[in-house]
Amino acid sequence: MWSRCARSTTITNKKNQEKKVNFSSSVPFPGEPSEPCMKTPVPGPNTKKLLSELSKLQQAGSTQIFVNYDKSIGNYIVDADDNVYLDAFTQISSIPLGYNHPDLLKLFEDEHNLKSLINRPALGVFPGDDWPSKLCNIVSLVAPKGLDHINTMMCGACANENAYKHAFMAYRRKMRGNDNFSVEEQTSCGLNSPPGSPRLAIMSFLHAFHGRTMGTLSTTRSKYIQKIDIPAFDWPAAPFPAYKYPLEENEACNKEEDSKCLAVVEDLMEKWTKKDIPVAGVIVEPVQSEGGDNHASADFFKQLQNICKKNNAAFILDEVQTGGGPTGKFWCHEYFDLETPPDIVTFSKKLQLGGYFFTEDMKPQQPYRTFNTWMGDPSKVIMLESILNIIKRDDLLQLVRDTGDYMKCQLGELEKEFCPLVHSTRGRGTFLAITAQTPEIRDDIINRLRTKGVISGGSHPQTLRLRTSLTFTKKHADIFLDKLREVLKEIKK
Amino acid sequence: MWSRCARSTTITNKKNQEKKVNFSSSVPFPGEPSEPCMKTPVPGPNTKKLLSELSKLQQAGSTQIFVNYDKSIGNYIVDADDNVYLDAFTQISSIPLGYNHPDLLKLFEDEHNLKSLINRPALGVFPGDDWPSKLCNIVSLVAPKGLDHINTMMCGACANENAYKHAFMAYRRKMRGNDNFSVEEQTSCGLNSPPGSPRLAIMSFLHAFHGRTMGTLSTTRSKYIQKIDIPAFDWPAAPFPAYKYPLEENEACNKEEDSKCLAVVEDLMEKWTKKDIPVAGVIVEPVQSEGGDNHASADFFKQLQNICKKNNAAFILDEVQTGGGPTGKFWCHEYFDLETPPDIVTFSKKLQLGGYFFTEDMKPQQPYRTFNTWMGDPSKVIMLESILNIIKRDDLLQLVRDTGDYMKCQLGELEKEFCPLVHSTRGRGTFLAITAQTPEIRDDIINRLRTKGVISGGSHPQTLRLRTSLTFTKKHADIFLDKLREVLKEIKK
Repeated sequence: MWSRCARSTTITNKKNQEKKVNFSSSVPFPGEPSEPCMKTPVPGPNTKKLLSELSKLQQAGSTQIFVNYDKSIGNYIVDADDNVYLDAFTQISSIPLGYNHPDLLKLFEDEHNLKSLINRPALGVFPGDDWPSKLCNIVSLVAPKGLDHINTMMCGACANENAYKHAFMAYRRKMRGNDNFSVEEQTSCGLNSPPGSPRLAIMSFLHAFHGRTMGTLSTTRSKYIQKIDIPAFDWPAAPFPAYKYPLEENEACNKEEDSKCLAVVEDLMEKWTKKDIPVAGVIVEPVQSEGGDNHASADFFKQLQNICKKNNAAFILDEVQTGGGPTGKFWCHEYFDLETPPDIVTFSKKLQLGGYFFTEDMKPQQPYRTFNTWMGDPSKVIMLESILNIIKRDDLLQLVRDTGDYMKCQLGELEKEFCPLVHSTRGRGTFLAITAQTPEIRDDIINRLRTKGVISGGSHPQTLRLRTSLTFTKKHADIFLDKLREVLKEIKK
Repeated sequence: MWSRCARSTTITNKKNQEKKVNFSSSVPFPGEPSEPCMKTPVPGPNTKKLLSELSKLQQAGSTQIFVNYDKSIGNYIVDADDNVYLDAFTQISSIPLGYNHPDLLKLFEDEHNLKSLINRPALGVFPGDDWPSKLCNIVSLVAPKGLDHINTMMCGACANENAYKHAFMAYRRKMRGNDNFSVEEQTSCGLNSPPGSPRLAIMSFLHAFHGRTMGTLSTTRSKYIQKIDIPAFDWPAAPFPAYKYPLEENEACNKEEDSKCLAVVEDLMEKWTKKDIPVAGVIVEPVQSEGGDNHASADFFKQLQNICKKNNAAFILDEVQTGGGPTGKFWCHEYFDLETPPDIVTFSKKLQLGGYFFTEDMKPQQPYRTFNTWMGDPSKVIMLESILNIIKRDDLLQLVRDTGDYMKCQLGELEKEFCPLVHSTRGRGTFLAITAQTPEIRDDIINRLRTKGVISGGSHPQTLRLRTSLTFTKKHADIFLDKLREVLKEIKK
């Protein structure tokens, strides 16, 4: 069935088989189902009942299924009606190793780890005596090159909020030449007024998603339902490149697209300076993930960083969704070969808690400028440490690249077979996407896949996106691809 | 030594002894030290070494001590130099039951709980099948009267950020008469412009603390170091009553203070309406906790709520620090006998995760308006459920009231004995504070207490605050009071 990719499949297969030996010895999921198994329509009767209960307590309209996490295993989740799904969306890309990984299940048998979980400190004041070595270990395992400072937070939004604050502080320090705050600054900030609360902006991109607290929401530009009725800062958003696919056939026009977008970035920098709201930082996702899996070239990011440097604006990479390996490198921006490190790289999701790595330049000079009660959570860092060691031990980034290459090739074949129903296969590693002909067809695909026992995700406006765990193998990929093929056939009829 | 409080002490003692039987049978801390024990100066050599390691990775100037959480127990923490402290600050009021409570240590032996910890869902889309019943249980145990809706978040700042969003949405719905968003609203919010991103404000109070993300930071007004260099929304802040103590001797002038502050609230409402930035919500702490332990009367809060009603502004109570029992009631605002429920009550800290209870009116009508990847954390809710059951089982709110009454009385005696070094003893339950003559004397008291093995807290500008666990007994109180007395004697010399 997947003949066109046979050659690369064979190669990949060979690699995978070698790896599988490693993989199954070191990451076993005993009892992982061999395929989806649907017992009721979706939503089933138990799910409906639970939804009605939850709806009494909160707006629950976004709930898709209720999951039995005790029964879920590996890349499969089991719902409240005992339906078994292959999960290619993994909690909006937040489950790195699959469900109930045996190594993680053992973590809190350790008394020290358990006590770290139960006695949650205010990390900024009373950290555990192992906290410096834990952070040091995280930094040495995965800090992006050149970013050897780290702050942990609770979630991605707080990571970005604080990244913006670092950018503002660094910008003001540069402008003032020092951190000798004037009395006027000290008093005016209590009134939310300049100069203490300065007029400064963070630039982002149209279709970006960076969070939904009020600072990050001012940089998020993906869907109106996320922003409507909420006040926002007067901050600029530039267009993000909208590429034509396949890339190799559209090089010239995509390059032109880069230039057009970057010209607007420069233009907006100037405009906002003239408005007296200079841009102190630019935040960008290596792949716009909620906004439709929009990619841009390494050259685009390099030039963007140069514009930031020219304007004294911090260059902030939001790797909340791309970080942690799904693109086949731990950080997606490793693909860009930036000439110098970005100023800040933010993370969350697969890394279990929010946070950011930053350069010496971005470090606040005074205590209590970046601070809150918890400043992260040691129990999540214990999980993160273990996850990072497993990724390394089981060579999961290689597995992601192999599975991803195979799936991307197959999606390309599907694209040809079902043109124009789906097109623009793109992505790196298993961080893959394909665009449907219309938003309605995309929704139809996702719903039909779910009915057949496959969980996938959509992103704005008509993208089908894959967000698998890092333990998703060719075997899982084949099931996904078979089901997708079935669905596309049904829709084509 | 504490003769003046002898009568009430005896009464309290009797009560406590009855309770102690319950307490020690149900909440044993075997091995809890009987008193502080200091082996090195503070900071000790190991602490210094760890601080130097941590400082390489982040701005660590706020770090006080490194704690060995394995050895810490009950109301005592042990630092990296084996110094044993009585903890009357409990991680900025975030440890409800003391360290290593035996019931909490057992929680994750349960396989279901463990799997809830390991497999962290995107609760807004794929909650566990026990999620509705868990939330329902929390609501039935502790929801403030009239607020039977709940959203969970990760921290207090995110709780408040989202509370503001609910207030904005409700305000706009009221003004528009419905939620039929116009095309202009839908498109303009993508540009951060009105009418989609409306000009609306949240009013707060001078000296308030509500968080440090950019929305909440715009309502925080406690210290300049928290706000300087960070852009803020143009939102109003009213003065919070500054009472004279003892209350019983200053009724008239404190009442006048209430009126003056409330008049400014009304005035600001009008001013901001004229500015075309109407106030959609007012957020207030039942006790301004970071801002100096500033209290206001029940009447103040009742009148404030009435002003909110008159202006269609949501009345939001920030119980992040007061919630969870430290004032002797689960929610501090229970003391206010409000005529109708507040619109939103936010929580975090002792409740292990952030979140808020809200009325039907405050419920968003559409899905995905309040949403993020995690929307809380089931493992924290498992801990919360257990903590709530223990508070009930061990009648800990009564213990808090008893210990608190005793301590408040004794602090009053110290105030008389050491006048004018300390004054204005105030608070409810063990949520107590006393004001030092100067900020320098306050800092001196805290540092000397720490040297003697007692952790206490300061708040702006010269307040010494107590934030004990709910298992803090008269025995612990006496140690605290003895050490405080020693310190005040030393300073008085």
